[in-house]
Amino acid sequence: MFQVQILGTSSAIPTVSRFPSSQVVTINDRHHLIDCGEGTQMQLLRYKVRLSRLDAIFISHLHGDHILGLPGLLNTLSLYERSNPLKLFAPSALKGVLDTIFSQTHSYLCYELEFIPTEDFQPGEVAYARKNFEVKILPLEHRVFCRGFHFQEVNKKPKFNFYKAKSLGIPNNYFSLLKQGNSITLENGLMVKPEEVHFEPDPPLSFAYCSDTRYSEELIEYIRYTRLLYHEATFLHELKSRAEETCHSTALEAGKIASQAEVRQLILGHYSARYRDLTPLLKEARSVFPQTALAKEGHVFKLKDFL
Amino acid sequence: MFQVQILGTSSAIPTVSRFPSSQVVTINDRHHLIDCGEGTQMQLLRYKVRLSRLDAIFISHLHGDHILGLPGLLNTLSLYERSNPLKLFAPSALKGVLDTIFSQTHSYLCYELEFIPTEDFQPGEVAYARKNFEVKILPLEHRVFCRGFHFQEVNKKPKFNFYKAKSLGIPNNYFSLLKQGNSITLENGLMVKPEEVHFEPDPPLSFAYCSDTRYSEELIEYIRYTRLLYHEATFLHELKSRAEETCHSTALEAGKIASQAEVRQLILGHYSARYRDLTPLLKEARSVFPQTALAKEGHVFKLKDFL
Repeated sequence: MFQVQILGTSSAIPTVSRFPSSQVVTINDRHHLIDCGEGTQMQLLRYKVRLSRLDAIFISHLHGDHILGLPGLLNTLSLYERSNPLKLFAPSALKGVLDTIFSQTHSYLCYELEFIPTEDFQPGEVAYARKNFEVKILPLEHRVFCRGFHFQEVNKKPKFNFYKAKSLGIPNNYFSLLKQGNSITLENGLMVKPEEVHFEPDPPLSFAYCSDTRYSEELIEYIRYTRLLYHEATFLHELKSRAEETCHSTALEAGKIASQAEVRQLILGHYSARYRDLTPLLKEARSVFPQTALAKEGHVFKLKDFL
Repeated sequence: MFQVQILGTSSAIPTVSRFPSSQVVTINDRHHLIDCGEGTQMQLLRYKVRLSRLDAIFISHLHGDHILGLPGLLNTLSLYERSNPLKLFAPSALKGVLDTIFSQTHSYLCYELEFIPTEDFQPGEVAYARKNFEVKILPLEHRVFCRGFHFQEVNKKPKFNFYKAKSLGIPNNYFSLLKQGNSITLENGLMVKPEEVHFEPDPPLSFAYCSDTRYSEELIEYIRYTRLLYHEATFLHELKSRAEETCHSTALEAGKIASQAEVRQLILGHYSARYRDLTPLLKEARSVFPQTALAKEGHVFKLKDFL
């Protein structure tokens, strides 16, 4: 299982229906939070995300709308008596901010918060490696140091083709050898290689989170062929100059990046509060990249839908 | 107009329906925020509280569930280009916390934030005086330095009794003199004092916010005869020992304080997340003080209902 649930889609100013940035990437029942705007812990409660399954938090950059939910969430985990360590990937200065807040609010975390500065990684480098997936760092261009995150399946095993094996007349007691990757020779002299009785593995699923960032073609090589791309689209292109000033992207630019990177599906988000109706942003991105959807609070994107 | 709107009623851990502590006291169309837990700015949006009418913020103490919505709210006011100064009454250490957050998140407030440390006032002292009301500081007893706030009308003018004036045969052209507090002598020699043609002024309306605090009889003299009292009731009395450990109150104790202080109406709040159903807390408080209500998100208490 590999899915992304949207918790917040607003840019700096929230609206009645839009919370600041946050998303949960769930892979094999383990949760990974990306950004943690104010109210994230309430959104996690609303969408019944089990906090005990939260393994790591990834923070793109130190603007309030991406981090102000973090002290409350970390404190709540402690009040729930979490014992497992929690990894926190973030720009290094966040540590001092958290230390100040926790010391002045007399808070103490009962679990280990393992802080990993994102400055320690080059763009494209793996920051977090697990058995079945890894997370690479993406270069984003914002007013402050900012990094995106690329989740990708690894070590995907091919599935055994039972019917093919039977049709070749292979007795059942050879199957485990073949599944372990060994070649076998049958009594009739037929040699069978493991790849002959396995399906091609599905191509690895992947998700890239790119927010906040100006339009940056440098990003493209890092996210090429990604299945699902979340790219910020703070403004319509008619506000291109405002986007440039603030180092944000327009919906058209998000579509252009998706198109050049040949991703399977684009999700827009990080909307300016000025847009009550988001349809114009969607239409603009679709004009250059039809496979575009709007991020909305609570919406789940399942990666298997973008094979 | 004098009313209190509840924005958040949870204690440290929020629930799906309960936000951390925050309330808006509105007097004559000006808003005053008390405490600012995470998500307060979203609650203000939800209940259509006009931010341009926010004059002052009062923070009881430096625990996360009372302050973590503050950086986001202050920043949003700046993004809305507020120009009026904003008063912030809070324990002095909050200033350093805000300074750290704003500097590290590259935020700059475009308006003046006038920080007033609550340590500067003795209990009972007026911290904020306006033409028609004043706010006094209340002594609360919590694990950390904590102060409550007592809003009370002042300089309430008596209303002119038009019918009484007519019945005394006073010509209309004398009315303004009488309304201004002058005595008059009619042509027939009758002397009329202003108090003869004015109603007794309504007794001043008042609201006291007492959270977080252990059961403290020292508080009673400061809130005697208050119309509306918000008193925390984190636990049922069966968890009295837990209340003592954490310097919180039980619902029974909130009722006892209300009863001894002879207030008109008690509101309970700051509920532990362990209570999904709040009815037992209400019943417990009502067993000693029948005029008790539960604070709930969005609920408005109009002070004129407790004359």
